[in-house]
Amino acid sequence: MTKGRIEAFSDGVIAIIITIMVLELKVPHEATLSALVPVIPVALSYLLSFIYVGIYWNNHHHMFAATHKIDGSVLWANLHLLFWLSLTPFTTAWMGENHFEKTPSAVYGFVLLMAAIAYYILLRRILRLEGPQSTLAIAVGKDKKGKISPVIYAIAIPLAYVSPWISGALYVLVALSWLIPDSRIERVHHATA
Amino acid sequence: MTKGRIEAFSDGVIAIIITIMVLELKVPHEATLSALVPVIPVALSYLLSFIYVGIYWNNHHHMFAATHKIDGSVLWANLHLLFWLSLTPFTTAWMGENHFEKTPSAVYGFVLLMAAIAYYILLRRILRLEGPQSTLAIAVGKDKKGKISPVIYAIAIPLAYVSPWISGALYVLVALSWLIPDSRIERVHHATA
Amino acid sequence: MTKGRIEAFSDGVIAIIITIMVLELKVPHEATLSALVPVIPVALSYLLSFIYVGIYWNNHHHMFAATHKIDGSVLWANLHLLFWLSLTPFTTAWMGENHFEKTPSAVYGFVLLMAAIAYYILLRRILRLEGPQSTLAIAVGKDKKGKISPVIYAIAIPLAYVSPWISGALYVLVALSWLIPDSRIERVHHATA
Amino acid sequence: MTKGRIEAFSDGVIAIIITIMVLELKVPHEATLSALVPVIPVALSYLLSFIYVGIYWNNHHHMFAATHKIDGSVLWANLHLLFWLSLTPFTTAWMGENHFEKTPSAVYGFVLLMAAIAYYILLRRILRLEGPQSTLAIAVGKDKKGKISPVIYAIAIPLAYVSPWISGALYVLVALSWLIPDSRIERVHHATA
Repeated sequence: MTKGRIEAFSDGVIAIIITIMVLELKVPHEATLSALVPVIPVALSYLLSFIYVGIYWNNHHHMFAATHKIDGSVLWANLHLLFWLSLTPFTTAWMGENHFEKTPSAVYGFVLLMAAIAYYILLRRILRLEGPQSTLAIAVGKDKKGKISPVIYAIAIPLAYVSPWISGALYVLVALSWLIPDSRIERVHHATA
Repeated sequence: MTKGRIEAFSDGVIAIIITIMVLELKVPHEATLSALVPVIPVALSYLLSFIYVGIYWNNHHHMFAATHKIDGSVLWANLHLLFWLSLTPFTTAWMGENHFEKTPSAVYGFVLLMAAIAYYILLRRILRLEGPQSTLAIAVGKDKKGKISPVIYAIAIPLAYVSPWISGALYVLVALSWLIPDSRIERVHHATA
Repeated sequence: MTKGRIEAFSDGVIAIIITIMVLELKVPHEATLSALVPVIPVALSYLLSFIYVGIYWNNHHHMFAATHKIDGSVLWANLHLLFWLSLTPFTTAWMGENHFEKTPSAVYGFVLLMAAIAYYILLRRILRLEGPQSTLAIAVGKDKKGKISPVIYAIAIPLAYVSPWISGALYVLVALSWLIPDSRIERVHHATA
Repeated sequence: MTKGRIEAFSDGVIAIIITIMVLELKVPHEATLSALVPVIPVALSYLLSFIYVGIYWNNHHHMFAATHKIDGSVLWANLHLLFWLSLTPFTTAWMGENHFEKTPSAVYGFVLLMAAIAYYILLRRILRLEGPQSTLAIAVGKDKKGKISPVIYAIAIPLAYVSPWISGALYVLVALSWLIPDSRIERVHHATA
């Protein structure tokens, strides 16, 4: 019950975040293919953020599928994660409309970093309740990806001032590393589902 | 559980897509019936897209009602479908505001085509898990409509440069073919529900 | 299952409709109470539509609580209802921003009328499946309110051209008649819930 | 069933409210950090409202988790609460864009006050059905926080005209008092979940 409603609320917020980003794709006034050209950078940053928010939904889904206990701190750690994710449409639009310039690319990475930290806090709060022998603890294991991702974001932020393309490439790299299925977690998840 | 959350998330995203399109119906400043005239093409393209997104929700609903197994590739195939559907409000507004001109009508069809391909991929991923003897496989059968629709979109896209009315008529035709209930799928679906 | 997903999707769409209307309350640039004055008519029309959409959610909720059978025609009758409800934010904003002028007030009533007809069609589709001895059929009974409401809207639309205040008063009157609990339906509904 | 759908609808509306507020963070045209400076007050007021709406979701969640009976008056008391919460994006943006000036800060408090009263009415309607020996009645107890919060809002509203910083500090204070977990309610809630 309790878990179901957190999932439902999170689904709602994440669904809205992933969808309202498309409102930043401003409809061009002209009816030519060339009128779509200025939309391309915004569309690319939309695509990147769509994948990122999709990854968060995916991981959130797997994490809660293996969660059995909830307390008030989990509720707030979850809202904290949703807060940072809710800033994604803002940073996505800023980065896209400014054609991946230095500062917007750095700020984009900062929000990714904060979301990753918020996710880590949420995971720790749940693991504290589930215990070290729980399905979730075993599935998560050493959580290499979860620990390396924020480090890469932290490196990518200052590098945006060297070249935004480096930080952009790092964001894409992290996204791809999450798209590749995490066989271990999924196996355990399937066994319990 | 797992299936329920994919459905809930998809419902959320599709509900938002179908509803935010109405934000493109710009409220006229004047209070006369003639002030509604420029809104008509946008309203017509809204109606067409509402029906299309409704069809996708309907088919998605029937497909998942007969689905029993989910894996990571299904999650991503589903997000891939939602991505293309999320571009519908953009192409709908562009086509409507430009009174069904050539390029916007072609791009509208391109997004329909990509969504149809994404739906096809999703269906194949699920069928691979369900197996050839599954309720879903039998219900889907040869999936004529699912295979012909993208072909018609692919034909309609270049034809938009001959006349957008031809491609518009083809989009309406495909939509109507999906509105007519697919007796076979529904019968099986009822038997299992 | 099937019913649950129609309810979830409808909840999503209705929740979005009722909430995005507030985006039409344009934030004033000045920080004075008098800057709120131009917002008042929009806020009043928002309040009226919030109550109307709330009534629809309420009735939808009661109807589906007593529904056991669904077919494809119910899915489409439901989408048809959601389509007309989705136009409410547009007519609400137009009526509010034009201070309840004649044409926007008439068009507001027209969308109410179409939504009422769509609701009636949906109810009939469900009753056809449930049968005349069903809980829903008994609860609905002669459905006086459901039949009188569209008649009042149909009267209110031309009367907007005599005075929008008459049609406005009629819209408020119908809304109030629905706010007063329908003791019969609710009793039966409680017995079955 | 009935309870589930009220929760789902409320989750949807609250999820949208908490997320569309971010649309008021207008994307700056320039790509510099200093271009973010004017966004800071809006971001701060967004943060405050995000926490407030999060608190409402949290409390709503706990309240309904301990609720077993619903009637029509609960449905409407719930919609009444959602109405006032739906005005939060408006007051948040007005307060933020005007850098916490007197009147917008007072109006922000007024909407908080009305939401608190609406929540109180909803709680009373539910308690009337649950009875004085119910889990919920015992968990709520004397409901000190629920009674003091509106008093503080009522004090903060006129104080905004002395200094908006005083009222702002009071809004933050009330929010913090709710963030600290209410051990009593949560204990009982866990026992019943």
